[in-house]
Amino acid sequence: MSRSPESFVRASIRPLAAYGPPRDPAPVPLHLNESPSDIPDDLKRELSARIEAMDWSKYPITDGARLAGEIAAAYGVDPAGVLVGNGSNELLQLLLFACVEPGDKVVVASPSFSLYGLQATALGANVVEVPLRAGGEYRFPVHDLIAASREAKLVLLGSPNNPTGTTLSPAEAEELSSGVRCLLGIDEAYRDFCGQDFTPLLAKNPRVALFRTFSKAFAAAALRAGCMIGAPSLCAELHKIQLPYNLSAVTCLVASELIKRPELVAQRAASVRDERERVARAMRELGITVHPSGANFLLFEQTRRPPKELHAALFRHGVLIRSYPIGLRVSIGSPAHNDAFLAALKAELP
Amino acid sequence: MSRSPESFVRASIRPLAAYGPPRDPAPVPLHLNESPSDIPDDLKRELSARIEAMDWSKYPITDGARLAGEIAAAYGVDPAGVLVGNGSNELLQLLLFACVEPGDKVVVASPSFSLYGLQATALGANVVEVPLRAGGEYRFPVHDLIAASREAKLVLLGSPNNPTGTTLSPAEAEELSSGVRCLLGIDEAYRDFCGQDFTPLLAKNPRVALFRTFSKAFAAAALRAGCMIGAPSLCAELHKIQLPYNLSAVTCLVASELIKRPELVAQRAASVRDERERVARAMRELGITVHPSGANFLLFEQTRRPPKELHAALFRHGVLIRSYPIGLRVSIGSPAHNDAFLAALKAELP
Repeated sequence: MSRSPESFVRASIRPLAAYGPPRDPAPVPLHLNESPSDIPDDLKRELSARIEAMDWSKYPITDGARLAGEIAAAYGVDPAGVLVGNGSNELLQLLLFACVEPGDKVVVASPSFSLYGLQATALGANVVEVPLRAGGEYRFPVHDLIAASREAKLVLLGSPNNPTGTTLSPAEAEELSSGVRCLLGIDEAYRDFCGQDFTPLLAKNPRVALFRTFSKAFAAAALRAGCMIGAPSLCAELHKIQLPYNLSAVTCLVASELIKRPELVAQRAASVRDERERVARAMRELGITVHPSGANFLLFEQTRRPPKELHAALFRHGVLIRSYPIGLRVSIGSPAHNDAFLAALKAELP
Repeated sequence: MSRSPESFVRASIRPLAAYGPPRDPAPVPLHLNESPSDIPDDLKRELSARIEAMDWSKYPITDGARLAGEIAAAYGVDPAGVLVGNGSNELLQLLLFACVEPGDKVVVASPSFSLYGLQATALGANVVEVPLRAGGEYRFPVHDLIAASREAKLVLLGSPNNPTGTTLSPAEAEELSSGVRCLLGIDEAYRDFCGQDFTPLLAKNPRVALFRTFSKAFAAAALRAGCMIGAPSLCAELHKIQLPYNLSAVTCLVASELIKRPELVAQRAASVRDERERVARAMRELGITVHPSGANFLLFEQTRRPPKELHAALFRHGVLIRSYPIGLRVSIGSPAHNDAFLAALKAELP
């Protein structure tokens, strides 16, 4: 009797469901926390010409290391402390794969980006969830996180946190970093929308690893680029299991040009922040509870209709947002898309 | 006393050295088994225009699944049995991560692509090497491989094998597939240079997984695309730990257009094959032992000079090839590059 191929897969993976982001298309797509606007046309034109001029048949041997150096220069960190990946998720996964063995304790916040727990569970980790909810609000319970981190291998948080928007203050981050004795991974995917910069933590605590992406304020989600910033000694270990030439030459080129244009990112992030506050005000005027957010999205709750029902109703207006058991999350889009969302919301919550 | 960050990394990774492909540039680069020629100019122009027209700020939500479907159609396999990755190595790594736990036995051929053993060792596997050398030749010892596969989780081979060029015959592959009771991964990166197609094995043995790449005969190494073909039930498990949107929209676009142009690949592969046989003949006329190869490279041995010394001497002529303890490997390049290699070889082996 022959065994089935899936019977060779680790027992920790078998019960999982794949991470499934919603795929329905919609005229007003506010469900993926994407940038409302593309990279400027003249830059796309210039980069496309350079892509055409590349030799597509050759391996991008040195491109990744060069990009890591450019990222290090832009962020003022040691180039030996930067790894690049196909989106920051590749590096989150790499850190987990490199460090987590079956039975290891991994601490995450609840709620947070589901991929953290999914990937850790796949490795057989004992995933401990620390709730962010306190009364009617979300905040990082720094003392609870430090307490939970004892005997853990890794504490993995997002700040600003998805889907709540909760953001660690510099003082909270400092306290957390001082108190956590294991690895402390902080996903900074949404940092540009609040100006957060946790690189100073690295000087005091080499067990901190930061994850940044080109998919949000950098507006290059289609290209898949991200980085991890951490101790050179940790990066050297992770690099051993990273695949050679993991990033395409095209992705390296685009990321390289974007990291050299901080003014583009700053402009875009500022307009998203303005729109975020405008949308939040308008929603609060409708009597909706909108949680404070440092990101390019808002988590909201209301008592008039069940979240799932409201989600479906908005979709009938062409507006797609994300539904969670704890509430609804809307991405901040272009002013026109945000207006469409607000109009649909007003129509459905009379 | 605080622990260092690297002390949290798995003990199986700490002693490893990173996979380090040679990075010296050279006028005649015959060290990476790349395609001698780029994708045709008119196709690059058309694709670059389509890249410019894309919205770079949006996630490539459906691109990967669409590409998997196109690959399945081109290869005549079930679309649910295709996974796409950033090069086939991402999928090799995924299979290992999904299946291999510390202490598991993984069987590889020796010599073979060093990444197989490196990635398995990183996971704490007990890597068993089965020698390919028999007398003065390399061949797949099918019975030894089947014997070694008992109690193993995975047998992982390349056919054609890198760096020897050794290729499983259809009868050997059939025998191997019938005899191996665990997972059997076959890296078919170089298959286009010998016309090998092991997809028929899948119908009889769902534990077979095939790995194919766009980096060799497809001439798109810069773009990083590859696939795994296997049982839908196995792919479904691996998909659970695959990252969402793992491939960039650009990579998906290029791979999608190339998979629809089998004539391009066939032409290129045929001219590489012709050049391979021409180069092998010329080398044999110099009294060099050239191993039979189904790939776009040749492994050779000679007794006149130590391999490392000959490697260095050729590099002084501007010709970069790969040096292994067992001999030297030269990629088949353009006719002009191959002539430069042969001229340098003649000069150095008088």
